Amino acid sequence: MEASMSEYGPITAIIDAALAEDLASGDVTTRASVPKDIHVRARLLAKAPLVVSGLAVARAVFARVDPRIEFEAHARDGDAAPPGGVLASLRGGAHPLLAAERTALNLLQRMCGVATLTRAYVDAAAGRCRITDTRKTMPGLRALDRYAVRCGGGHNHRNDLGAGVLIKENHIRAAGGVSAAILAARQAAPHTLRIECEVTDLSELRDALEARADALLLDNMDDAAIAEAVAITAKRALLEVSGGVGLERIAALSSLGVDLISVGRLTHSAPAADVSLLFEPREGGWA
Amino acid sequence: MEASMSEYGPITAIIDAALAEDLASGDVTTRASVPKDIHVRARLLAKAPLVVSGLAVARAVFARVDPRIEFEAHARDGDAAPPGGVLASLRGGAHPLLAAERTALNLLQRMCGVATLTRAYVDAAAGRCRITDTRKTMPGLRALDRYAVRCGGGHNHRNDLGAGVLIKENHIRAAGGVSAAILAARQAAPHTLRIECEVTDLSELRDALEARADALLLDNMDDAAIAEAVAITAKRALLEVSGGVGLERIAALSSLGVDLISVGRLTHSAPAADVSLLFEPREGGWA
Amino acid sequence: MEASMSEYGPITAIIDAALAEDLASGDVTTRASVPKDIHVRARLLAKAPLVVSGLAVARAVFARVDPRIEFEAHARDGDAAPPGGVLASLRGGAHPLLAAERTALNLLQRMCGVATLTRAYVDAAAGRCRITDTRKTMPGLRALDRYAVRCGGGHNHRNDLGAGVLIKENHIRAAGGVSAAILAARQAAPHTLRIECEVTDLSELRDALEARADALLLDNMDDAAIAEAVAITAKRALLEVSGGVGLERIAALSSLGVDLISVGRLTHSAPAADVSLLFEPREGGWA
Amino acid sequence: MEASMSEYGPITAIIDAALAEDLASGDVTTRASVPKDIHVRARLLAKAPLVVSGLAVARAVFARVDPRIEFEAHARDGDAAPPGGVLASLRGGAHPLLAAERTALNLLQRMCGVATLTRAYVDAAAGRCRITDTRKTMPGLRALDRYAVRCGGGHNHRNDLGAGVLIKENHIRAAGGVSAAILAARQAAPHTLRIECEVTDLSELRDALEARADALLLDNMDDAAIAEAVAITAKRALLEVSGGVGLERIAALSSLGVDLISVGRLTHSAPAADVSLLFEPREGGWA
Amino acid sequence: MEASMSEYGPITAIIDAALAEDLASGDVTTRASVPKDIHVRARLLAKAPLVVSGLAVARAVFARVDPRIEFEAHARDGDAAPPGGVLASLRGGAHPLLAAERTALNLLQRMCGVATLTRAYVDAAAGRCRITDTRKTMPGLRALDRYAVRCGGGHNHRNDLGAGVLIKENHIRAAGGVSAAILAARQAAPHTLRIECEVTDLSELRDALEARADALLLDNMDDAAIAEAVAITAKRALLEVSGGVGLERIAALSSLGVDLISVGRLTHSAPAADVSLLFEPREGGWA
Amino acid sequence: MEASMSEYGPITAIIDAALAEDLASGDVTTRASVPKDIHVRARLLAKAPLVVSGLAVARAVFARVDPRIEFEAHARDGDAAPPGGVLASLRGGAHPLLAAERTALNLLQRMCGVATLTRAYVDAAAGRCRITDTRKTMPGLRALDRYAVRCGGGHNHRNDLGAGVLIKENHIRAAGGVSAAILAARQAAPHTLRIECEVTDLSELRDALEARADALLLDNMDDAAIAEAVAITAKRALLEVSGGVGLERIAALSSLGVDLISVGRLTHSAPAADVSLLFEPREGGWA
Repeated sequence: MEASMSEYGPITAIIDAALAEDLASGDVTTRASVPKDIHVRARLLAKAPLVVSGLAVARAVFARVDPRIEFEAHARDGDAAPPGGVLASLRGGAHPLLAAERTALNLLQRMCGVATLTRAYVDAAAGRCRITDTRKTMPGLRALDRYAVRCGGGHNHRNDLGAGVLIKENHIRAAGGVSAAILAARQAAPHTLRIECEVTDLSELRDALEARADALLLDNMDDAAIAEAVAITAKRALLEVSGGVGLERIAALSSLGVDLISVGRLTHSAPAADVSLLFEPREGGWA
Repeated sequence: MEASMSEYGPITAIIDAALAEDLASGDVTTRASVPKDIHVRARLLAKAPLVVSGLAVARAVFARVDPRIEFEAHARDGDAAPPGGVLASLRGGAHPLLAAERTALNLLQRMCGVATLTRAYVDAAAGRCRITDTRKTMPGLRALDRYAVRCGGGHNHRNDLGAGVLIKENHIRAAGGVSAAILAARQAAPHTLRIECEVTDLSELRDALEARADALLLDNMDDAAIAEAVAITAKRALLEVSGGVGLERIAALSSLGVDLISVGRLTHSAPAADVSLLFEPREGGWA
Repeated sequence: MEASMSEYGPITAIIDAALAEDLASGDVTTRASVPKDIHVRARLLAKAPLVVSGLAVARAVFARVDPRIEFEAHARDGDAAPPGGVLASLRGGAHPLLAAERTALNLLQRMCGVATLTRAYVDAAAGRCRITDTRKTMPGLRALDRYAVRCGGGHNHRNDLGAGVLIKENHIRAAGGVSAAILAARQAAPHTLRIECEVTDLSELRDALEARADALLLDNMDDAAIAEAVAITAKRALLEVSGGVGLERIAALSSLGVDLISVGRLTHSAPAADVSLLFEPREGGWA
Repeated sequence: MEASMSEYGPITAIIDAALAEDLASGDVTTRASVPKDIHVRARLLAKAPLVVSGLAVARAVFARVDPRIEFEAHARDGDAAPPGGVLASLRGGAHPLLAAERTALNLLQRMCGVATLTRAYVDAAAGRCRITDTRKTMPGLRALDRYAVRCGGGHNHRNDLGAGVLIKENHIRAAGGVSAAILAARQAAPHTLRIECEVTDLSELRDALEARADALLLDNMDDAAIAEAVAITAKRALLEVSGGVGLERIAALSSLGVDLISVGRLTHSAPAADVSLLFEPREGGWA
Repeated sequence: MEASMSEYGPITAIIDAALAEDLASGDVTTRASVPKDIHVRARLLAKAPLVVSGLAVARAVFARVDPRIEFEAHARDGDAAPPGGVLASLRGGAHPLLAAERTALNLLQRMCGVATLTRAYVDAAAGRCRITDTRKTMPGLRALDRYAVRCGGGHNHRNDLGAGVLIKENHIRAAGGVSAAILAARQAAPHTLRIECEVTDLSELRDALEARADALLLDNMDDAAIAEAVAITAKRALLEVSGGVGLERIAALSSLGVDLISVGRLTHSAPAADVSLLFEPREGGWA
Repeated sequence: MEASMSEYGPITAIIDAALAEDLASGDVTTRASVPKDIHVRARLLAKAPLVVSGLAVARAVFARVDPRIEFEAHARDGDAAPPGGVLASLRGGAHPLLAAERTALNLLQRMCGVATLTRAYVDAAAGRCRITDTRKTMPGLRALDRYAVRCGGGHNHRNDLGAGVLIKENHIRAAGGVSAAILAARQAAPHTLRIECEVTDLSELRDALEARADALLLDNMDDAAIAEAVAITAKRALLEVSGGVGLERIAALSSLGVDLISVGRLTHSAPAADVSLLFEPREGGWA
């Protein structure tokens, strides 16, 4: 599993906002209780099994507070880490390490959490179809959420409202019907985007196919209806399943012949992974 | 339950960042498929039982995209909403409503999710002790997470590193011991802050009491050790329990005589609440 | 021609940056030479024929400096204005009008300039194919450039690097060939995006068709080669012509059967339209 | 020709805004089609004759995306480059180079375009008077536009509304006349600024001279009127010509004895220069 | 004395930064101790004699926290207020008033402090010469400092490094002498700016006059030397006195025939004015 | 005296805002009068006795403008510097040094000024009680003001409205009395914060003690009343004296048995320290 954070500009802004929340008024505990020039070694640990995501982000948090902190990664994003696994070792001033600790962990536990949950879905789909995220991401963290999904082996859906045409129920109601909406979109949307349309029953599906949608989102259908939709569609459009898709349904769903299953909970309800930073005991003396 | 968002300056920045993620490149679907001047009515719905939090934030998202959108709340933050409950009704242009929809829902589902989980903990504690959050909040959303915890009936812990002295294990390791850390903190910290110290066993607890800590955080102790800590402390310091505290332990824990139970998962692992926005069917015609 | 600016969040940031360039140190001329409480009427004029674009932006500039300025538009974006045409009439304090004047005009002359040039291309194509912009926009002004192109009757290409897959020569060189690049893209890109590939000769075009690209960009080909490309492609992919496309070639090019002509100069070299703001002479007295 | 960008703070903000427009949602094409660890060499080329401006800005764009990219300039700002001239050679990861490419080129083609057009005017004036820019710059890019004008051999006019007193027609109308406006300005403006006044005929010019303006802007006058203005003024004030000044008029205008000709189109209508980035073919293998 | 803040764009940024310092983590005292829906009346008071400056800024602070707060000014900027004078009366929610109070007062006490000190200098100069500020302003508050100086009756010096040419000792050392520096500046600086040069003795003054400087800054000279400088200069250049100018010297200095005295301490050492906000006692009940 | 700036995130924002005020339009004097490639040595000097504070900030200003500038500190924050003392020596390009000079000095003179005044108060208190700052800091500079107070040997009061509960007169009026306010605060405030209450007479003091406030602020009391308050309180709460505390009162006040004296003028009225930057004369030639 390889993935890169190098393309994301917004990461610095995310880190700065997160640091500002915690540190704008200074770290009074550390200033008051820890001698100023202490240097320490520390380890970043997985306390439960997880899929790694965001080590470069954690590194950047520490570097933002003090560029002299050394951060050596012992894993790569996408790796599965066992409980107790050492994700990275650090060395630097106790003051900046303590100031940055919580912010780095908050970002890392989020990203690993998303990657870990995604991996479970991807494993259940067993390559039979794509598992994708949705736009139900944590406000302000979309770039990181998207990346974490990829670390878990998932695919991304459209990144934002400018990166895909997806005609949903409210559009259809406002546009006056499936066909009207699709035809208008074909006329006006940038040619770089496929036209996808949400359908809630087979009648809408037929309308959408007739209007030559490129992809169809089957919303909250049961397995039987999905199977029928696959048959009717006959490869004329991509088929995406969405809506209330628990992990327990993935094995079956992915065998029905659809192209994608999109899962909101990958990003709106992923539990945090359990990671921590632990200073090594001071023996003899640090410098 | 009443609470106000009026004091929070960062909300506009949060909203702008969230809108920018989704909308900076425009909403091509709506532009392409929905006539430009359509006006609609819509309802904001709870699709599952939840504790309301963030209606003012949702309102602000819509207002940010178009100040002319009307937003009438039908619930108050802190209310329990039943499945199908109408949280608000809206009226405005279809274009700005569709552009703002996902961002508003993403914020609302997060805040209601945190409030709902908090309420479960608070109910389990039954007023015997405070349930508080931690600094394990979603990066960038701390102000909203804090508020949502209060909507759920919880209390806030220190907001940031400048709003409380909490000497944790890594501080102790760097400072050279519990007593040294507490005494240094008493000497140097602002007098407006209490001195709290994490302890992992009863020996550390005795050291901390002797150094006259104002509060003690009992980290990952079992119920028996906590009960003993309560007895030893004898009201000389506030006692906070933390670490791996599942909902099933709260009833028992809250009966042991501690003052606070702090729960990271309120904010790092709360599942999103299920909310949606639904346009009303177009009958006859809108204006 | 109707188009709306309501969907664009970045406009306020653009306006603020532009105002800051001109006004951050105050307007010493006005402060020194114009009595403080003078109110004036003014007209916003087209001094040469132009296609209108950006009246809402100009209005917003004045409102940003002083919300009490009245701005009544006498044209709509997309309209053709004759020389001497009054685009808007304004009324307000002389101080804020003078402070905002240049910034409002700079934005308006840019947007009208882009719209006017686009209209010429669109008229030449006479509906036979789409005229689109490119990503060669003025840095910082992409949202406005895109909108102005639409006001001129053009279509937008992908908005940004996340809103379309366009494999260009440098990608092909790095990926090791047309087929390799397209196949990799089909595997990994979000399903919401079509796969477009730049080709420089008919051999590459055949490779790209075989790899099932959804669209092909014919780069710097002459009319004969383009005609052959149309024949070979036989509607299996969208065809876009690009590269050094002067206005004089559009009539012929658009008759060859291609789907789109993309024109960098619409946004990188559009001359400013000639607009100005003129105060009405003071007769008797203003209030 | 030597000039430095080191003094400009706003450049980073400009670059970040430009990158955000293009890259905030990631570069899906590159991520999908180009192997992750490919390193390449590339050349930045002039495809038509141009005056160089902005190499440090282009370098900064690449460095912002990836500080490890090597950028070796082969020209200096202010140099004339022939068609095919290599402006710089680069080496780095294919991913960051592709992500930064368009933003760097958009800035460079703008700056070289302004410098190239300025050079034509400066050459036509042949040192007989200054060619200056105006405040009709591209919104958000004023610092770069100003610098590019200097690279072309031009001078800058006042940078902003705080850096010069220039009483224009609208000020005069609001102030109640040329003399009133100039006298008020002398009384109130900072002593560091000269007092310049726009005049539209010789009567206003005499009034302005009598009120002891330091400089006069001759607005839209023909050559005969300008010559008479020069004679009347007799070096008592600086004389600036402005308004609809095409390149073909410069030789004659600059021989009339005026001190400056200010040219709006240097910055509001300069066509982009033709620059491109080309990866070197991959032979054998890169590392 | 009338002056307007309407021209300053940066004020909102200043207010937001100041509010963020105080309020980003919420106002825990008010939230905890004051009932949520209390409305109050309050008065903004001068507790010692002062010159008013910044009422619009104070108003804007309250409006930023809650637009519903009513703020009625009872004085105008530039007025002299007696001890106990009511500057404004307010009415609004106790929560937002308490949240905004300190930030509003901090800005107001600063601006009134600068205006009050300036007024003392201006009165001492009795119209015989201008009293001006310098660039020794409080970092981040220059726009407000400049305005407050004007409220006190002072003039502004150049606003920033782009709004005036002032060749100081370090420039002279780097340029290789007074004449070299002035001649270079005349050649290259924008024509909108006067050329001012700092001189430390009469020899340098003669050099600067010969090089035709427009203004001379007499640095740290005693009264006799200044008088001689006035005689030598004979109106050929503006004369500015600067350097360690205490209030007690102004009467004499201003009688020597110089044009300006610039005073750093107006902005770098002005004591705060004593202003406070007092809630009216609650009688019967508020609403 | 040792103190660190490393923990403060907002410093870069403060520096950027300060540089933008001065430099956003470029440094026309230096560009016009100083050869471009001159390198110089310079010394940062104390021109009067002062307590050093902010050398890291000054260094950061120069680095922000040009990272190649060398800055060697010859003192540490908290040191007392004699008149003529060299605080640092610098080496770098004349252009960036001149561009950054004023901003660096403005920040340094402010911070040294605050530290110097604080030291006088701290020396007068002779260790008998804490001298603390207040929230009456310079808007936008709180982090620097706080740090400078510590450099002078003072302590910080609560940093912001979220970092301490301080019930003041206006809260009491809104809450309906001292006891009501304190009891409400104990119920609702985070447990990490002490509850402090302002009292204006001994009756209020007794109420506050009865309601078990953790600290009391004695507002504008005379020495006799303070002594009585000390006796009544009998160590049951911390005692803070505030309000109109001149340096001449500190020796006596600090002997009365109070715990803290808070002094607004440390930050709202500290005169700037006198610091300057002097280039070394150019002998032979620089490189």
